[in-house]
Amino acid sequence: MNLEKLLNPRSVAIVGATEKPGFGGDTTRNYLQFSKDLDHLYLVNPRGGELFGRKAYTSLAEIPEDVDMVILCTPEKTILGLLEEAAAKNCGGAVVFASGYGEVGAEGKIKEQLLIETANKLGIAIMGPNCGGFANYGLGRVAFAFLMEDRERAGNIGLVSQSGQIALSGLDTMHYGFSYVISSGNSCNVSVEEYLEFLVDDDGTKVVCAYMESVKKPAALARLLDKAARKKKPVVLLKTGRSTKSQELAASHTGALSGSDKVLRAMFKRYGVIEADDIEEMYSLALTFSTATSLPKGDRIVYMNVSGGEAGVTADLVDDFKLPLAEYNPETKAKLQSLVPSYGSVNNPFDMTAGIGYNTPAMVEAMEAISADENVDAICIDYTITPQIWDQTIAYMVKAVSIVREKETMKPVFWLPFVSHSRHVESIESLAAAGVPMLPTGLYGCRVLRKVLDFANFEYQPFTPSMVAPVGQTAKALSEVDSLCFLEKHGVVIPPQATAANTEEAMAQAKILGYPLSAKVDSPDILHKSDVGGVKLNIRNDAELCAAFDAIMESCTKAKPDAMIHGVLLKPMLELGAEMIIGVNNDKDFGPMIVVGMGGVFVELLHDVQMRPAPVNHQEAMEMLEQLVSYPLLTGYRGSQPKNVQALADLLVSISQMASQCADQIKELDINPVFVTQDGVSIADALLIVYEDGQ
Amino acid sequence: MNLEKLLNPRSVAIVGATEKPGFGGDTTRNYLQFSKDLDHLYLVNPRGGELFGRKAYTSLAEIPEDVDMVILCTPEKTILGLLEEAAAKNCGGAVVFASGYGEVGAEGKIKEQLLIETANKLGIAIMGPNCGGFANYGLGRVAFAFLMEDRERAGNIGLVSQSGQIALSGLDTMHYGFSYVISSGNSCNVSVEEYLEFLVDDDGTKVVCAYMESVKKPAALARLLDKAARKKKPVVLLKTGRSTKSQELAASHTGALSGSDKVLRAMFKRYGVIEADDIEEMYSLALTFSTATSLPKGDRIVYMNVSGGEAGVTADLVDDFKLPLAEYNPETKAKLQSLVPSYGSVNNPFDMTAGIGYNTPAMVEAMEAISADENVDAICIDYTITPQIWDQTIAYMVKAVSIVREKETMKPVFWLPFVSHSRHVESIESLAAAGVPMLPTGLYGCRVLRKVLDFANFEYQPFTPSMVAPVGQTAKALSEVDSLCFLEKHGVVIPPQATAANTEEAMAQAKILGYPLSAKVDSPDILHKSDVGGVKLNIRNDAELCAAFDAIMESCTKAKPDAMIHGVLLKPMLELGAEMIIGVNNDKDFGPMIVVGMGGVFVELLHDVQMRPAPVNHQEAMEMLEQLVSYPLLTGYRGSQPKNVQALADLLVSISQMASQCADQIKELDINPVFVTQDGVSIADALLIVYEDGQ
Repeated sequence: MNLEKLLNPRSVAIVGATEKPGFGGDTTRNYLQFSKDLDHLYLVNPRGGELFGRKAYTSLAEIPEDVDMVILCTPEKTILGLLEEAAAKNCGGAVVFASGYGEVGAEGKIKEQLLIETANKLGIAIMGPNCGGFANYGLGRVAFAFLMEDRERAGNIGLVSQSGQIALSGLDTMHYGFSYVISSGNSCNVSVEEYLEFLVDDDGTKVVCAYMESVKKPAALARLLDKAARKKKPVVLLKTGRSTKSQELAASHTGALSGSDKVLRAMFKRYGVIEADDIEEMYSLALTFSTATSLPKGDRIVYMNVSGGEAGVTADLVDDFKLPLAEYNPETKAKLQSLVPSYGSVNNPFDMTAGIGYNTPAMVEAMEAISADENVDAICIDYTITPQIWDQTIAYMVKAVSIVREKETMKPVFWLPFVSHSRHVESIESLAAAGVPMLPTGLYGCRVLRKVLDFANFEYQPFTPSMVAPVGQTAKALSEVDSLCFLEKHGVVIPPQATAANTEEAMAQAKILGYPLSAKVDSPDILHKSDVGGVKLNIRNDAELCAAFDAIMESCTKAKPDAMIHGVLLKPMLELGAEMIIGVNNDKDFGPMIVVGMGGVFVELLHDVQMRPAPVNHQEAMEMLEQLVSYPLLTGYRGSQPKNVQALADLLVSISQMASQCADQIKELDINPVFVTQDGVSIADALLIVYEDGQ
Repeated sequence: MNLEKLLNPRSVAIVGATEKPGFGGDTTRNYLQFSKDLDHLYLVNPRGGELFGRKAYTSLAEIPEDVDMVILCTPEKTILGLLEEAAAKNCGGAVVFASGYGEVGAEGKIKEQLLIETANKLGIAIMGPNCGGFANYGLGRVAFAFLMEDRERAGNIGLVSQSGQIALSGLDTMHYGFSYVISSGNSCNVSVEEYLEFLVDDDGTKVVCAYMESVKKPAALARLLDKAARKKKPVVLLKTGRSTKSQELAASHTGALSGSDKVLRAMFKRYGVIEADDIEEMYSLALTFSTATSLPKGDRIVYMNVSGGEAGVTADLVDDFKLPLAEYNPETKAKLQSLVPSYGSVNNPFDMTAGIGYNTPAMVEAMEAISADENVDAICIDYTITPQIWDQTIAYMVKAVSIVREKETMKPVFWLPFVSHSRHVESIESLAAAGVPMLPTGLYGCRVLRKVLDFANFEYQPFTPSMVAPVGQTAKALSEVDSLCFLEKHGVVIPPQATAANTEEAMAQAKILGYPLSAKVDSPDILHKSDVGGVKLNIRNDAELCAAFDAIMESCTKAKPDAMIHGVLLKPMLELGAEMIIGVNNDKDFGPMIVVGMGGVFVELLHDVQMRPAPVNHQEAMEMLEQLVSYPLLTGYRGSQPKNVQALADLLVSISQMASQCADQIKELDINPVFVTQDGVSIADALLIVYEDGQ
């Protein structure tokens, strides 16, 4: 759907305009107060006459020019007719505030479907229904039903919100500047993903920000996130659904069933999306990217305080959020020492003392010295800015920051206050003009800073998920031997194995494989082999082998008389090592995901797993392993031999490539365990579930 | 030190008073502007004349009455003389702003020592030196050097801060009301602990709040925390030192070496102290306790929203902070369903919709129904309050809350906003008047709420730590057998054991103990027995026993020719089970601490341990175990037999009692492992370190 006429309209009509309070009145008043180009605004009210001193047209047809976009403030039952009238004026977009659609049950869903069909037929992009409207602050089009304060809101944050209330939270807060604010409502024929892509493409939008409850178009989401990542345009998303309860609420709120939340977050990670965990954090992240004129090249920061106490608090906070403290080179340290009084000490966090904090030129010198240090990536000033300036320190410091930021070479500067309240407006504006973001307080501020640094240092490797329709609707489990053969056929290295239908074949294979061996029943109908006596280990010679063969066949035939039993699967006994679990899950939305974790309590009790969309390359595979809590157990923990993690990473790569290539066939894969030794890796067991026609 | 004249002075003199800016001028101006009873205020300046239209006395001696407290705005070199003069006026307290003491190195430390001696001799309690002063808002005494806004600050929060800047953060923020604000500076002859105890005792202080860098008087701290816990007066502490860096900074800032941070936090837990992790959280916690007229009896809360989006965000947040969602009983649900429109659904978080949110009487009905539900402990309204009210919903909701809170039976109500900015003053005041705390936003708000609920539901069992001076200065390790005998002698159950000096004795003991047995070298000089071939397991008969005896003696004699070897220690082989580690560490500040964790990766990699001051009772021991991440492994994890955790808790109790009784003897105890089986517990090995004279 083309959003040009909806979001960037030249001519606009408000249908249902009135001077009375309510949707029509509030929207008209807002539009007149906050918008530009009022010459091409038309108020429509069947009674005609004058409204707000302007002519009121009795219908859309009466308007003397084409109407790009209509704002419909009228009830549900009028909407279809008005869209037909609008289409006659070459209209391409409509804001529909009316409720009574998909959000109110079965009958409403039918009405919404009819709305979609009509709008699609007429070529009209609908915002809503059941939405709060939108603003294009660049062009000056404010089509909101919300009442709000008269204040400049133009800026570079592009916001889409599935909740009007959450959009309003941003509009109601000082200091945020927006390119677009879109309250998408039911998103009937324009999806949230389409708005997001519009904002990724829009040059006036520096940071894209969204509140989302569900993903309706996974492929579109992946495409737009790829586009944003290539441009390195930050995308800040607050996606509810971490908890079961919020998934339930989203289902009842928007009617959309959400896919796996964990899968979605693995996708976000893959594209470098900045995830916010609540509304405050979402807006703070957006504000930080909006204000910062450059981002740090690393995460080594010097924190500057004017209080020993606040320096101590900062030290604890940055440690909590794994923000590394920059270490000065000796020249920087000497320079700073010359600027503080004799009792001051140069540390990081750096208590500047009054010697620097109350002295703008000294602070300029200090910041320039710190910025010039190759061990420093950024500076963060930690000081509360009060609503009125009683403490002149604030003014001295703000002035110093403004001065140093005039230099092109100055590294990025952030500001972190300790107490939350409104702040001295001129100081905030000076800092914003100097490209210095105001972080939220303490814990929030450090969370935001950590996420901003992660984004700044994220190296995107372009990615398109393997989203392929499966070949069949139903799925079946393959036997161990078939699963392993499937893996081998698709480039995954598996240990030697052979099947034997009788004891003679078994002894012949044993000659090739070599003792000691393991033997397991080979049957597509027996998945839990140990439970039916289908496994024998440590077979050392032909006699033991024959006895094992017979015992397995007898026990399994007895336990599962109907099972088709091909014989036994023989393998040399593997060298034991760290036991890892590798899995593939072909997500309905985003295709195959690869998962890895260490067996035992790590996966089962601690849920210590890493997931990524397939395929992954070697570096990504290593990152997955390194991010496991259990990773130290692989690298020579407490004197044990380091395991071959490179080989494990290679295995992850080959499995992920297979999963990606065979996305139409594989439903699930469970490799449990993989033994990782000093020398390499070996798959001890595998269970593959394929779509029925997919072998 | 008696703090009465310092903190509650009737008559006050400001020495160094002037009309010029600076310490003397700012302090005088503050005092005149913010204080009461100015008839008993005396300004002192050697030049005499008039200041601010008042008589200026040329010296303290000239003042016509006794002076309870002096505020010294003069430099370090004048202080001792002024204290002598003050003493002559029966002065009992002095605020010393001057710096140049302990904070500036060795020479300053000597000056500070002299100040302490002089003040002690004269019986004057000193606030500072190097402090920001204090205020007693109840009596109206404001002795601050800080410049600040003219605003009412009287209330019930008692604050002590080792940092002037952090005290100022609270003074500078709207809506906080204080009984006392004390910037303690170097705390030369009045410790932070003494101020805290004063506030715990003070009836005008409802919540005690402190920023601390170090503990100088551990016994005093324990005593005052016990007193506060018995009164159930909340103590909110922000103690830096979570990170190594902040411990370093505190050492250089106040010169105090901090004890073990983990021990201190275990003490805080024991006394139900509410720990804050940053400044914003400290003040928010204080404000919440300050405002709440009652606290919930449990943690089952109903969260009321007026936005599906915000309800979803709330669901994720409360899940993050383990805040359980109350479940309505059917009558409540039916009642609420009757209040929302047909499309609304009754959930928790509860999206009230416009049906309730825009309708004060409906909201009153809804809140009363929820409050009457026995499955609900409190209500939390989640809605942002903007600086101006554009959205009338806020007004409707605030009104409803004010109405319901007039009923005595109404359960506690909290308010959680989503975006951080200054808020509509009248709404905030209405809510405060209704005893409804305004939490900080989102994540912060839920953290604060979780901590408030933990305090509200904390059941204190009075406790005095076993802080006993050790009998000796040096310490020595006991052998395994001696360690175990020590434990047994002090009431800890140990498995059967016997020592044997030769094979005959060994065989005789084996008859009593029964095979299979383990044998270990018995020597006080050999701590790592396995390393020298000093351990044999699974000995099944006399022949194996004799062989093992000889092998152990030969191997150990060879490896450690100088060791005194008593023979071997024999024990029946223990039934293996979950391996736990129990330890005792006799902390220099707070006496014996008991520690428990599961052996292997849980203690070593995940640092999954629980620590408490000894002794603990059975319930506390169970809580320690339940709070371990590894706890599910003890209770029948994935079909395994549940272990006897009650027996493990009993063992913890007996060890903690021993540690407490023998606090003068035990330096450290390391029991590794303890096997916990289905049937019980058994100590497999123990290493006790005792003070030299302490056996």
